[in-house]
Order: sequence, then structure tokens, then C-alpha cells
Amino acid sequence: MPTAIELAEQFQVSLVGDGLLSLQGLAPLERAQASQISFLSNPLYRQQAGDSAAGGLIVSQADLDFLQASPGSNTVGRVFFVSKNPYATFARMAQHFAKASAPIYTPGVHPSAAIDPSVSIPATCHIGPFVQIGPGVKLGERVVLLGITSVARNSNIGSDTLIYPNVSIYSETKLGERCIIHSGAVIGADGFGFAPDFSATGAEWVKIPQTGAVVIGNDVEVGASSTIDRGAMSDTIIGDGTKIDNQVQIAHNVVIGNCCVIAGCAAISGSTKIGNFCIIGGAANFAGHLTIADRTTVSGNTSIIRSITEPGQHYTGVYPSMLHSAWEKNAAILRGLDKIRQRLRLLDKSK
Amino acid sequence: MPTAIELAEQFQVSLVGDGLLSLQGLAPLERAQASQISFLSNPLYRQQAGDSAAGGLIVSQADLDFLQASPGSNTVGRVFFVSKNPYATFARMAQHFAKASAPIYTPGVHPSAAIDPSVSIPATCHIGPFVQIGPGVKLGERVVLLGITSVARNSNIGSDTLIYPNVSIYSETKLGERCIIHSGAVIGADGFGFAPDFSATGAEWVKIPQTGAVVIGNDVEVGASSTIDRGAMSDTIIGDGTKIDNQVQIAHNVVIGNCCVIAGCAAISGSTKIGNFCIIGGAANFAGHLTIADRTTVSGNTSIIRSITEPGQHYTGVYPSMLHSAWEKNAAILRGLDKIRQRLRLLDKSK
Amino acid sequence: MPTAIELAEQFQVSLVGDGLLSLQGLAPLERAQASQISFLSNPLYRQQAGDSAAGGLIVSQADLDFLQASPGSNTVGRVFFVSKNPYATFARMAQHFAKASAPIYTPGVHPSAAIDPSVSIPATCHIGPFVQIGPGVKLGERVVLLGITSVARNSNIGSDTLIYPNVSIYSETKLGERCIIHSGAVIGADGFGFAPDFSATGAEWVKIPQTGAVVIGNDVEVGASSTIDRGAMSDTIIGDGTKIDNQVQIAHNVVIGNCCVIAGCAAISGSTKIGNFCIIGGAANFAGHLTIADRTTVSGNTSIIRSITEPGQHYTGVYPSMLHSAWEKNAAILRGLDKIRQRLRLLDKSK
Repeated sequence: MPTAIELAEQFQVSLVGDGLLSLQGLAPLERAQASQISFLSNPLYRQQAGDSAAGGLIVSQADLDFLQASPGSNTVGRVFFVSKNPYATFARMAQHFAKASAPIYTPGVHPSAAIDPSVSIPATCHIGPFVQIGPGVKLGERVVLLGITSVARNSNIGSDTLIYPNVSIYSETKLGERCIIHSGAVIGADGFGFAPDFSATGAEWVKIPQTGAVVIGNDVEVGASSTIDRGAMSDTIIGDGTKIDNQVQIAHNVVIGNCCVIAGCAAISGSTKIGNFCIIGGAANFAGHLTIADRTTVSGNTSIIRSITEPGQHYTGVYPSMLHSAWEKNAAILRGLDKIRQRLRLLDKSK
Repeated sequence: MPTAIELAEQFQVSLVGDGLLSLQGLAPLERAQASQISFLSNPLYRQQAGDSAAGGLIVSQADLDFLQASPGSNTVGRVFFVSKNPYATFARMAQHFAKASAPIYTPGVHPSAAIDPSVSIPATCHIGPFVQIGPGVKLGERVVLLGITSVARNSNIGSDTLIYPNVSIYSETKLGERCIIHSGAVIGADGFGFAPDFSATGAEWVKIPQTGAVVIGNDVEVGASSTIDRGAMSDTIIGDGTKIDNQVQIAHNVVIGNCCVIAGCAAISGSTKIGNFCIIGGAANFAGHLTIADRTTVSGNTSIIRSITEPGQHYTGVYPSMLHSAWEKNAAILRGLDKIRQRLRLLDKSK
Repeated sequence: MPTAIELAEQFQVSLVGDGLLSLQGLAPLERAQASQISFLSNPLYRQQAGDSAAGGLIVSQADLDFLQASPGSNTVGRVFFVSKNPYATFARMAQHFAKASAPIYTPGVHPSAAIDPSVSIPATCHIGPFVQIGPGVKLGERVVLLGITSVARNSNIGSDTLIYPNVSIYSETKLGERCIIHSGAVIGADGFGFAPDFSATGAEWVKIPQTGAVVIGNDVEVGASSTIDRGAMSDTIIGDGTKIDNQVQIAHNVVIGNCCVIAGCAAISGSTKIGNFCIIGGAANFAGHLTIADRTTVSGNTSIIRSITEPGQHYTGVYPSMLHSAWEKNAAILRGLDKIRQRLRLLDKSK
């Protein structure tokens, strides 16, 4: 167990309290014990933090001042880690403690793996059972493919990338370093592009070959069952540090900037460009061919159908839920909104 | 073929008609033949039931009274199974007949399976080809893993659970008894948790280790390509008897009660608690950190962004669809709803 | 490299310009070089087409007339392929050029494949590693199963169908000829059908056996992680030439006509019938038991909750997005829409 002073040094935060206290892990405020560390990143929880049994607490200077002025039932004797960003410090400390119990993926190739003879697997990689690797694939150092995964021809996977089971990587995909790809993800499937050819004698959606690829930067996480399609003639691109949740659909030729977060079930239609540092809520969706400015926030279940040019704005468009009987009336009135406007105009004139 | 009287005894329903009639299966009212059984659970279909050629009919007492008073073209000579819950009786009889033609999964382990040497597989289990089982995994009796599935370390799977191909079970997952998990499901992937650390010198979403697990009760069904994430510091929990359709996304630390049904493409954000006996429509979604009372019904494509405290209510929030040209006007007026209110206020004052 | 005259003959279009020009592939207007072909299918891009460096251009007669009357910076010396449907001609030419670099899947069965001894694989098929094929399965000629895929008992796969890795085909599925099934797709999982049986002593959703199948026509494409459930007592049916994008959910007993396109994340609830030539936008969803007329267009993120009887109409229902602060006010007024109507009525009366 590390001591408080060791942790403070490692994570470059100030320490207030007994530096020799040993600490063994992190826990939420309400469950943390004397040997554990918790964190306070939202002043709403100051009272709860004061009363928490946590032996260590990651706080901002302002929250520390408050807690020292108004100590809760357990504030005495506790050590404080004072951080400019308590939440990020918490995340990094939690990573540190989680590493101790993380599984070790021994380097080596499972005998069942079906690897094209042209491929040379670095000795530091872990290739699990039932992995299929096509010709021309290149893996960086310490790549982990846990099992039951296909990596098709000419794909590149950067060093230290971890791929969970049941992932499908189509041909020509480029995956950066330190990425995490969760089970069920499909990267590089054909974009959805067809030319209608409806004549007197027949009808057909003619498939447009999807000859671009998917290019994913470093430190990207792709959630379970998310799908990122290859481009039609140019590439689909995901920037460094962007995090993608489960069941997200990213269509062909989409370009996403750096350090975005995209929550579950969001969908981005073809050729739309998302800037840097955008935050996309769950089940939000974007029409195609849009350009979205940096630092845009989109609420969950909101449809964006026009480009957003001013950076840093927050957009929402969600029908408020209500009791079903009320909604039935409400929706009927909404349908007739033009009549309300007409009557208002008549009233205006008759005034 | 069982006789009517045998079926009536087995399913504990009253019989009206010839108990010696042999019956061989179930069919919808419009397709059932003289050797088949159909059911009537909605009085709207009384006429159709009277005219059906079905040799057997599962009905309520009230519907039987109606049919006997107003016999349709095929009501004579038919047997009736009188049930308090005709639909449930139908389901149970259908299960009975389906069992006869269901595949038998012979106990045994396919030679290709990659099973950690620490794991002992009960002799009653069926483990298909290309199954990967990690260290510390425990299986109950008669577990069926059909193939191409990964069960990571320390997971537990209860007796009589059936897992279709291409399923991913992450580490530490607990699955109850008699569960059915469909293809493409991913259980236990990392929850979506990151702490923003944006400074002058760099930008990063720091990953928060997801050290909780997924705990699923008995008699739960998980649909194809549904995803249930592991908890951050505590567990994600699904109660007994809850049924989850395809492409449902359940985020970290969600708690779902018993006997809920959650239709396709629904999404539940992190830490939301859903009560017992809730019915969630397709593509409905919930914000995070909500509490939803027992027996709540949510319509399809409805966003719930506040907690629901009163049990048994039905909520909806769906923009009514209309012809696109009408919608364009409608949406423009909706955007300017505040102007309508302002003009109303002016008119009120000028009255 | 083919010459312009060879291409014109092969794709049955008129040629204007030097028939001996050699051309080596397709590219977008802004990137095409003198040895490449581009296309103009939207008059909005006439200027860009005129200025493009493309050596060949697929155009309509009207656009050619315009370009010859108002030549851009690069119009001189170019060859024109004059087509009634330039976009479809482009798609077909692109297919032709893509074929040259497409991978060749050598006929044969990978030694790791687990194929039921009852199954006879045509010699023209390619069966990759870790493929599981159940008893009674029938494959047409030149079927390609790339790997890590399960095809359960009694399924039929038509000639020239291509299945990417990590696909799950449940029992009794019928797949037509020349289909493309992308990774993560699940075809034939149980429909979501349960009969509630809630009594004083217990509560249960009784599973209704899903004894129908999935029947998919010819020339159908199914996107990554899309799910098509088997029918309850009859079949789920997808018509010829229909194209389905990623993460689409199609419930039990749905019937979809011919030549529809269904964009990503759309969802169609049980027993709904969609006509021919319908265009369904991304994340659109349909309630169950509806009938949708031929040639209906539904915008993205629109809920359809009633049948559509008139063919060829375009429906939309999307809450317009706005700045979050504006939305908060807007949604509050929307909730009180009945009060606005009441006040209007009062004003009408007091006039």
C-alpha cells in the first residue's frame, strides 16, 4: 500500500495531513473506508464529503477551505490531496490502483490463430485464440488481440492497442497507438452508398464501391458494437484522443476531430465533419454533409440537421415527455400550430 | 399428438368440447387448421375467432360466452381451453409444442474450444466450437455455449443458461439461471467514464477504470447486439425475469428491477435506476442518474430526462410525424413559440 | 487501362471527345486528375465540374450542353460520357475499376472450420477459419464466408453471397443470391414476444416460441451490426434489392418490399409491412402492425406511429434543435400548448 506522500508526489498534487497514512484504493464518498481515497469535484457534495469515512480525499483548494471551515463528522485526521482538477486526479489514481489487479496478457500467439504467412507478429504482442489476420497486416509492439477477432488485409494496428473479443477490422484500416476497441465493434465496413437506377424495365440500387478506408488516431476508445464505416473515395477519420461509447454509428467519410466524446447510440451521417473537443449526447444524430464547430455540445436524442458555425455552443431539440394522455392532446395541438398562428394574426388585425 | 384433455390437464385450464380430439400445434386465427389450436386474447378478434378453422381455441370465459351466444362459421365441434390468461396459456402451450422440434445440444466440449486449464466444465454442459473460456470461470449445469463466444476470467454462468454464437462476456460477469443471450450481445464492457483534463499544454479525457461488474438475475433474456456495460466502482444490475430486446444499450451502474421489458434500441444512461415491472418502448432513452418508479410505461422514441416518482404512469414525448412540407412550416412555428406567447400576452393586456 | 471508347461501349453511354484516351479510375471532381473520370449528377456542381482536372466526365445531355456553352478552366480536351443517369453510370464504372483491385477469395474450406458432416460444401465456395456450419445447411455456388461466422441448422445461402466475419445466422434462415452481409449482423434471432402472467403469487413474462424464420431475397445488403429477427409463427421477409445500413433493427414478422433503402439505426417494430421502393432515414422508427405504402420517404429520426396509405409521400417529425437555453423555454411553452389554445379561445370569444 502506498503512503499519502508517495501518492501526492506521483500525481503531483499538494498534500494536507499525515503523509505516512497508507491507502489502498478508491471508493465513492458514501462507501469509502479509512484506508480508501474518495474525491470531491462538485461543491454540491461538500456535506457528503465532510461526513464520508474516506481516509483520503482529493479536493480543490476552494473545497478544502470550505471543509476546513465547516468540518463534517469525519473530516478530522483525514489527508487531503489538493488538485486543480480533482476528477482527473481521481481518474489517474484509480488507474494506478486498477493496474495492480489488471490481467496480464502474456506475449505470444495462440496456436489456433489463423495468421497469413506474410505477416510478422512482434514478439511483444498477445494474439488470443481464433484470431484471423490477413495478408499485409502490420501490428505495433505490445498489441493485444484477445481472441475471436478478424483483422483483414493491409490493416495497421499501432503499439499498445487493446482489442477485445469479437471485433471485426476490415481491410486497409489504420488504428493508432494505445487505442481500446471493445467487443462487437466493426471498423471499416462498406459505407452505405447506392445510385438509384429505376427505369421502365427494372429497378436497382447500384452499389458504389467504398474504396476509402478508416483512419483512427492515437488514444481512441471505441465502444461495444459501434460501427465506423470506410469512406467511399476518401477516408473516414477519427482524431486523437476521441472517445466513442457503445452502439455509435459513424458513416462513410465522416471526419471527427480530436478529443471528442460521443455517447452511446449517437449516429453521424455521411461526410459530416465534427470539430475538436465536441461533446455528443447519447442517441443524438447528425444529418450528412454538415460541419460542426469546435467545442459544440449536443444534448442526447437531438437531431442536428444544419451546420453549426459558432464554436462552443450547446444545442438541444427534444420533445418533452409528459403523461401519455396529456401528450395525445399536446401532439394534436402541435400538429395544428399553424392554425394557432393564423388565429393570432386575425386577432392582431382585429385589435 | 396430445389430446385436448391431456393439454387441459397439463396447462390447468378448463375444457369445453371433445376431450379426445388430437391436436398438433398452434397457429394464428387466420391460418389455423382443424388439428391446430389458436387463441383469442383481445375481444376485437371475436368475429375472426368464430370464423377460424382452428380445432382448438384458448379463450377467456367472457369470450367463450360470447362465441357460444354468437357462433361463427367454425365454432361448432371445436374444443375450448378456458383460461384466466389466454395469452399466457397460448405461450406455454406453444413452448410445449416447440420443444418437440427444438434442437438437442449434446453435452460435451468441442475439441477446438480454448478453455483455461483452471476451469472445470460440468459434464452436462454443451460447449461448441471456437469458444474461449478464461481462468476462474464457473459454469452451472446444462449451460449451452453454442460457439464463437468468449467468457472472460472469473465470470459465472448459472445453470440452464443458453448463449448463442458471437457473444462476448467480459470478466467478473454474473449471469443467472435459465437466461438466454442472443448473438452479438456484449456484457461487461467498460462503462463510458472519462475525466476531462484540458490545460494550456494539452487535452485529454482521462479514462476512469471501470472496476465494477455486471450482475444479471435469473430468467433474463438479452437480445441480439445489446450491450450492458460493467459498473465504474459498483455493479450494473439486471433483475430476475427482465427481458431485453435487440440493440438495447445499458450503461454503467444502471440498476433495472425485476420483470421489466425493454424493447429494441432503447438506451439507459449511467446510474439510472428503473423499478420493477416497467415497460420501455423501442428507441426510448433515459438520461443518467434518474430514478424511475415501478410499473412505469415509456412510449417508443421518448426521452426521459427527469425522475418519475409516481408508479404506474405512462409517459410519451414524440414529435408527431406529418408531410415533410407541413413539418417545415410546423417546425419553424415551433421554434418561434415564444413569440406566439408574447403576442398572446399583449393581446391579453390590450383586451 | 481501358480507353474512353471501350468504356463507352461497355457501359452503353455516348462518347463526346477523344475515344483513344486511356483512363484508370474514378475520383471526386475536386481531386480527379487527367487520367481519371469524375461525374456530374447535380447541376449545382456545374462550375466545379468545369474547373475539374478530370480527363473524363460522366454527365447528362443537359449538363453537357451547359458545359459546352460555358466551358470551365479544364473543359477543353476532356472526354464526356453522356448518360441518362450519370450517378448510376458512375457507380457501375467504379465497380468495374474496383474489381481489378478486389481481393480474390480462393475456393476451399479452411481446416479449422467446424462443418456438420451432413453438409456438402460446393467446390466453388470459400469458407474461412473458425466458421461453424450446422446440420442441413445448404450453400449455393461461390458463397464466401470470410471467417468467424456461424450458420445454424437448415439455413440456405444463395449463390454468390458474401458474408464478412463475425456474422450470426440462426437456424432456418433463407438468404438469397448476391447478398452482402456485413460483420456483426445477426439474422434470425428470436423475436421479442412474451405473454405477461402477473398473478398474486408470481410474475412472469412467458416466452412465446419464435417458430417462424427470416427470408431474405436476392441482391440484399445488410449492414454491420444490424439485426433481423425471426418471425413468431410466420416469417420475417426482406424483398429483393433492398439495402439495409448499419445497426438497423428489424423485428419479428416485419415484411419489407423490394428495392427499399433503410439508413443506419432505423428500427421497424413487429409485424409492420413496408412497401416497395421506400426510403427510410437514419434512426427513423416505426411502431408495430403498420402498413406503409410504396415509395414512402421517412426523414431521419422520425417516428411513424400510424399506417401510411398514400404512396409516394414524404413524412417528417423532428423537434428542431436550438440553443439549449432557448430550448428550455421552448419546451416549457410546448408543454403548456393547451393553455395557449385556451387563451386564444377566450380571446376569440371576447372579440
